[in-house]
Amino acid sequence: METTTVMSGLCTDLYEIRMAASYLRRGMTAPATFSLFVRKLPRDRGFLVAAGLADCLDFLQEFHFDTDELSYLSDVVGLDADDLAALGELRFTGEVRAVPEGRVVFAGEPLLEVTAPIAQAQLVETALLNFVTFQTSVATKAARCRIAAPHADLIDFAARRTHGLEAARAVARASAIAGFAGTSYVAAAREFGLPASGTMAHSYIEAFPDERAAFTAFAEDFPGITVFLVDTYDTLEGVRRAIEVAAGRSEELVGIRLDSGDLAELARRSRRLLDEAGFADAKIMASGGLDEHQLADLSDAPIDAFGIGTRMGVSADAPSLDSAYKLVEYDHRPVMKLSPGKLTAPGSKQVHRGAPGEPELLSLRDDIAPSGREPLLEIVMRDGVRLHDPENVEVARRRFEGDLRWLPDMARQLTDPSPVEVTWSPKLQRLTGELRHALATRMGLKDTSE
Amino acid sequence: METTTVMSGLCTDLYEIRMAASYLRRGMTAPATFSLFVRKLPRDRGFLVAAGLADCLDFLQEFHFDTDELSYLSDVVGLDADDLAALGELRFTGEVRAVPEGRVVFAGEPLLEVTAPIAQAQLVETALLNFVTFQTSVATKAARCRIAAPHADLIDFAARRTHGLEAARAVARASAIAGFAGTSYVAAAREFGLPASGTMAHSYIEAFPDERAAFTAFAEDFPGITVFLVDTYDTLEGVRRAIEVAAGRSEELVGIRLDSGDLAELARRSRRLLDEAGFADAKIMASGGLDEHQLADLSDAPIDAFGIGTRMGVSADAPSLDSAYKLVEYDHRPVMKLSPGKLTAPGSKQVHRGAPGEPELLSLRDDIAPSGREPLLEIVMRDGVRLHDPENVEVARRRFEGDLRWLPDMARQLTDPSPVEVTWSPKLQRLTGELRHALATRMGLKDTSE
Repeated sequence: METTTVMSGLCTDLYEIRMAASYLRRGMTAPATFSLFVRKLPRDRGFLVAAGLADCLDFLQEFHFDTDELSYLSDVVGLDADDLAALGELRFTGEVRAVPEGRVVFAGEPLLEVTAPIAQAQLVETALLNFVTFQTSVATKAARCRIAAPHADLIDFAARRTHGLEAARAVARASAIAGFAGTSYVAAAREFGLPASGTMAHSYIEAFPDERAAFTAFAEDFPGITVFLVDTYDTLEGVRRAIEVAAGRSEELVGIRLDSGDLAELARRSRRLLDEAGFADAKIMASGGLDEHQLADLSDAPIDAFGIGTRMGVSADAPSLDSAYKLVEYDHRPVMKLSPGKLTAPGSKQVHRGAPGEPELLSLRDDIAPSGREPLLEIVMRDGVRLHDPENVEVARRRFEGDLRWLPDMARQLTDPSPVEVTWSPKLQRLTGELRHALATRMGLKDTSE
Repeated sequence: METTTVMSGLCTDLYEIRMAASYLRRGMTAPATFSLFVRKLPRDRGFLVAAGLADCLDFLQEFHFDTDELSYLSDVVGLDADDLAALGELRFTGEVRAVPEGRVVFAGEPLLEVTAPIAQAQLVETALLNFVTFQTSVATKAARCRIAAPHADLIDFAARRTHGLEAARAVARASAIAGFAGTSYVAAAREFGLPASGTMAHSYIEAFPDERAAFTAFAEDFPGITVFLVDTYDTLEGVRRAIEVAAGRSEELVGIRLDSGDLAELARRSRRLLDEAGFADAKIMASGGLDEHQLADLSDAPIDAFGIGTRMGVSADAPSLDSAYKLVEYDHRPVMKLSPGKLTAPGSKQVHRGAPGEPELLSLRDDIAPSGREPLLEIVMRDGVRLHDPENVEVARRRFEGDLRWLPDMARQLTDPSPVEVTWSPKLQRLTGELRHALATRMGLKDTSE
């Protein structure tokens, strides 16, 4: 089942196309560097988990305008034949440096830098910002769930309420990077090789004359995997019924799922019933409107696995990030803007990571690299070609797990965290100060720098 | 530029597939009715705007499993040859009744009801809930912006921070239904015939030696459409420069855009500068982190158009809805569940709308229709086939505008609104009470109904 896809050369904002057409008319083909970063962390975020790069690289590699897209730009946007010829030939031929997926990052640190002829780098802004902002939001929310419930299996249950099915796919992947053990969303499980998870809903129970009939039917149809959903009518009665059905079939009871009510209390009472019936190995799973705060509250409850849905999948308390894709260099000249509250730092950059507890160091790309520190941005695309095959989710997940061990407790806190400090190299500070002064002078403005 | 699409028969949760396989094995092919509704409105929502139906119908019409999808289900999920044969033949052959897009609805009212053999109706749950929940959230958020700024043009600027590009497409469409005048997102403008909007970003200004050079270049390249972005360095200086460039070219000045700072004050001062320069027709556009509350605060400012981005596109304060897709009837038998806080009302339903100020009437579908009221749910698909061609966005927008005039002021309020009351018909009340009592008795529970 395939339908027309949403990804096309027109997956961009109109102003990108107008600007690109203007650059091309004027022969402005000098390289531009754009830096993608998050200006400020949302409330209660002490870190971010980088995600979205894989989709960015797919997009860049495929980027072009089809004939019918060009004809739309001619008819409706009013581009002329020369513009269309130039756009028709345009491919992404630039370089991408990026922080690999799964790494922990902080505000002000570039997640990705694009260096390409300015029209190319401009046209892809919308898609790159979109993929990185959204997937980093969700990976971060999922990481917070992981921190709140370090010993339980977390399963992505979000597909039914993400922002579209493409989002459901991205959420399954981003949460897997951040340590989730599986997903209910089959298309993503298949595409990314993730464990798929799920047995029955309330509707299944209701379609049978009673709960016992439903449990029995399911256990017959799927022996050895059944997790019984026990709260359709009365939760503890449901647990008793699951026990009777499993015992009647002389089978192990794999598990039960609680989806409503006081989960901690119901889990304790269910655990007792299961243990008394000799089903000490039966797992208890809980679901229903959970997020990292509720997971933390449930940390003492005997719950082995959680289904985490909507709040993770839309990153409910911070469904977006204050991200930006800013021109930092054009034709080998560093640039910045002075808009109130939106001042940017000029030049292509590198982030140098130290030992746990050390502040991050943000430098210009061509600064001398400090010893004993790890640079976070790596070249991932050159001349429009990926340098590596798309990586397995497992690789990004291991990166996340390494960084999570590195991350100081203060930054991991679910409420009022303190992110790791990001310091600027002397050279970056100097360039920013000089450029701000030069711009303000040229514009006849007061230089408001400190 | 086409890439593999995300839409497939596996765009569902695993439990739907297991349940469907079990129903099919057992010959459970009786019709089931599932009702899709929102349990409770989010804080500060006095109404919802129905959206997402078009994607639901596309999905249902195309729904099937490909050979390679079946082979995944065989290998990884462990379905047997009979299951695969049954799933391979499965198409959606049912009936869909729905509230048309653009209509105003309230909590507890079905937005959509599916009646089909239970396996079919079950398998499509995830996608239908996803489309309706997300798009209704966004259409509602956009409608609140429309209410807050009734006289300005609102333009969707959200594409860069929606949850993926499929979401950007849906946001452009949903906001157009709720009265937005255009979108920056070109792919959606083209697909839905919406006005595309956008001229320049800060990067364009920065790529030139100075602001004047950038403004002049753009005005030469796109005469008669230029909206100058004036806040890259100093906003009022930027306005003066836009005036000089337009005057120097003896052209009309189409408009300026403010993207930072105190928008109300800058708009007033910009208006004065433009008027004094003889550009009384030049429009002022504002953008930058706006939502309905800031639009309301800016209602006295001389701003003609707003670019509304992230907060609308992710419905920032309510990025999801407490939606449900519940079995209400199976094999002509009404069903309900008793889970704490998640009690559902049995039976297929209809919503009857009265005059402004009258409460809504929720009835069973086969209740006698009250006179002088309009039924909201219409049959839109029968035997798996759409009854009408996909409708133009304009049709849904007119529906929204009609309902907005009908909507009482109390429900339109941006903060602490009072939704229109939804009353239940005597027959629906009776059926719910009887069924709850019967279930409780059968389960040996105390009947906790009033």
